[in-house]
Amino acid sequence: MSPTRQLADFVTQSDLESIPADVTTEAKRAILNYLGCALGGSVEPALDTAIEVLAPFSGQPKACVLGRYEMFDELNAALLNGIGSHVHEYDDTLPQNYIHPSVPVASALFAYASAHPVPGHDFVHAFILGFEVESRIGDAVYPAHYEAGWHITSTTGVFGAAAAIGKLLGLSTRQMIWAFGLAATQAAGIREMFGSMAKSFQPGRAAQNGLTAARFAAADFTAGEQALEGPRGFAPVTAREYDLDRIGSGLGTEFALRGNAYKPYACGLVVHPTIDGCSRIRELHRPDPMRIESIELKVAPLVLDLCNKRELERALQSKYSIYHAAAIGLVRGKGGIQEFTEDAVADPVLARLRDRVSVAADESVTEDQVDINVRLEDGTVHSLFVEQSLGNIHRPLSNEQLEEKFRDQAVLALPQAQVDALIDACWRIDTLGDAGRIARDSRPGTAAGRVAGDSR
Amino acid sequence: MSPTRQLADFVTQSDLESIPADVTTEAKRAILNYLGCALGGSVEPALDTAIEVLAPFSGQPKACVLGRYEMFDELNAALLNGIGSHVHEYDDTLPQNYIHPSVPVASALFAYASAHPVPGHDFVHAFILGFEVESRIGDAVYPAHYEAGWHITSTTGVFGAAAAIGKLLGLSTRQMIWAFGLAATQAAGIREMFGSMAKSFQPGRAAQNGLTAARFAAADFTAGEQALEGPRGFAPVTAREYDLDRIGSGLGTEFALRGNAYKPYACGLVVHPTIDGCSRIRELHRPDPMRIESIELKVAPLVLDLCNKRELERALQSKYSIYHAAAIGLVRGKGGIQEFTEDAVADPVLARLRDRVSVAADESVTEDQVDINVRLEDGTVHSLFVEQSLGNIHRPLSNEQLEEKFRDQAVLALPQAQVDALIDACWRIDTLGDAGRIARDSRPGTAAGRVAGDSR
Repeated sequence: MSPTRQLADFVTQSDLESIPADVTTEAKRAILNYLGCALGGSVEPALDTAIEVLAPFSGQPKACVLGRYEMFDELNAALLNGIGSHVHEYDDTLPQNYIHPSVPVASALFAYASAHPVPGHDFVHAFILGFEVESRIGDAVYPAHYEAGWHITSTTGVFGAAAAIGKLLGLSTRQMIWAFGLAATQAAGIREMFGSMAKSFQPGRAAQNGLTAARFAAADFTAGEQALEGPRGFAPVTAREYDLDRIGSGLGTEFALRGNAYKPYACGLVVHPTIDGCSRIRELHRPDPMRIESIELKVAPLVLDLCNKRELERALQSKYSIYHAAAIGLVRGKGGIQEFTEDAVADPVLARLRDRVSVAADESVTEDQVDINVRLEDGTVHSLFVEQSLGNIHRPLSNEQLEEKFRDQAVLALPQAQVDALIDACWRIDTLGDAGRIARDSRPGTAAGRVAGDSR
Repeated sequence: MSPTRQLADFVTQSDLESIPADVTTEAKRAILNYLGCALGGSVEPALDTAIEVLAPFSGQPKACVLGRYEMFDELNAALLNGIGSHVHEYDDTLPQNYIHPSVPVASALFAYASAHPVPGHDFVHAFILGFEVESRIGDAVYPAHYEAGWHITSTTGVFGAAAAIGKLLGLSTRQMIWAFGLAATQAAGIREMFGSMAKSFQPGRAAQNGLTAARFAAADFTAGEQALEGPRGFAPVTAREYDLDRIGSGLGTEFALRGNAYKPYACGLVVHPTIDGCSRIRELHRPDPMRIESIELKVAPLVLDLCNKRELERALQSKYSIYHAAAIGLVRGKGGIQEFTEDAVADPVLARLRDRVSVAADESVTEDQVDINVRLEDGTVHSLFVEQSLGNIHRPLSNEQLEEKFRDQAVLALPQAQVDALIDACWRIDTLGDAGRIARDSRPGTAAGRVAGDSR
């Protein structure tokens, strides 16, 4: 059977009972993490601008933009949710293929569910399926696809969103195949945009395009039926090498959610070990930042490839600067949203340290690792090797850490009580009669407390 | 100067006076041809379906879908115009890079202009610039980009639409660079979808996405500033080999419109020589189709690559069948819209001949050529070599042939008087006070005659 059909069969025929309980639990952690990111990003200028631009082009405002008062039609809401939830680069990551998996899928799902009643268990089921689809397609084309310059989150995310919404719309297998064709038709997003607002636009567009693909397929708008494997299909066109056997291997028994990772830091994943390690040096030795003479890092080659930016013109660029990462770890001991603002970039102490960082690529260092040597003016050297970075699958964030991360972000947009109610609702989302209430109750000024009273 | 900046400078700084008169004349021919195709496609099921799906998701219906009564916001209208105008594959082609250049640009322009007043000369100017931008980007990445499987019309068309609308919105050079970044972010469309409704969706989405890119850029939504040439930019990501010097070479003095070609047949370009040649054999010898024993074709290798489909399940596939092309030429002597319907596919005489065609790829035959040998049951052989196919730049359609092609299609959607008024308006579009009136006057049931009274 062709990989495209295999995936379509999997999605259309899956029932919730066949999903292992630990996968559902991890789905709820992912959804909680996603929603926190969406709320943290909901006050960002990129989202303000997008909302302003799109306001004249929305159909009936039935769907929610998470954390915002403005409402849109579901297609625009999916795009806007994607921008808001990815703008801080604080969302989840699949370490094996660098996909940020939840944004495209959940952005479409919350947009759709806020406009149409969706039982919580169906929402979680669709989320798991969409997540699985994009991850498997990513596994099949990674690393060649990513190395070519594709923003794999958006190029595979459009398939994930199509799968999730297609499941809720009850597509037939043939329609799901068309939805994947229409997703392939719209698969886009390049890494050249990293460090600009266009980066968060990409997974947002993937969410919107996947939702659109499912809607068109449901109306029997046809597409080529070998979206992935055809000679001019997604895999051969976008990857020099690929392995489509990854699509079907373990399908239905192995779930990508089990390997999902949540970022402790609001920036590019590959600089996390450096923030982690520098924060630990700060915690252990409290070096005076003004007396630090040099910081030497040995990192995996990809780190320099992605994050070799010392001079920062825009705040967003700081999320992809190995120099900034070392500086904030040593000076602030954390990497929350506030560490990647214009103010943080302009902070003279951080700027001084950025200038003192030297970085060497070392093939023997993995992308979860870093070797750090901090030399003080008095000759003292603090050395530390990070073996596994906080937040990776070997050192996952606990539920409490996820809640704390949620709160840190959500309070930027909503009052404390509403934040608490949303956390509670996320943990219970699979039991809610209508999952869209979470999106509706993320609107500023609404009575979020009523979520607490809703269960099946 | 970087190619991206070069193009942005060119578009923002161009004034209409610097455009040679022959280019403006060719632009009007292209616009006439485009509008005829849009009207011919306006009654197609693919467009009906898309309209039905998108109706709930339109903002204020200020923009026209050419040839339709329904109105949408400009973003949706751009997509729908693209579907309608490309669905018959009857639109124009740049022979040097296989781009169908007018659809993405004009679909966005007519959508925009039907909602906002745009003087006719500004419309034509923006059209010329958008056309030039997509063609030059296409030249830079062709043939590797196309051979990889990209639908070059949509992947480059999004830049063309962004340029055209960006010009009308008065973007600064920096904003135009961002618009190109946002276009690159959305550049998509694969050849695997050929033969399905998704094919026409692709240039439609390109029109919509380019318009969106310009709107976002106008609001200072930032993007990477090396959309084309950056290490993860459009050219390196989507083409194994490319030549970015093509972007700036002759910019402002050489215009792609001069090499634009208009199809005499409503199907894939590479089967045109076969329809042309078989039609001439029919005209010269009137062979009885039921007495034809075999048809032997020698074609350029690309023809078999694209159009090697003998068994046709869907009408759309007939547009990419070298077998069907030979059959309609010999039986009907033409290749209008009616030759690619379900009825035509089911026609037993055509089916009989499709089965009798054999095709050999021959490196010595160009894509404008074909060598035909038709053998009758009585042993007679009619041989013909097509040196230059009708409609290519060496045998261009005359203005009268373009008008006839327009009428053949437009009467499917509109009454004769309205059709005549629209033809007249297209020839005078650069003198109209408001070019959007053409789009508004393509609505069924409107008084198109008033276009005639409008001039500057």
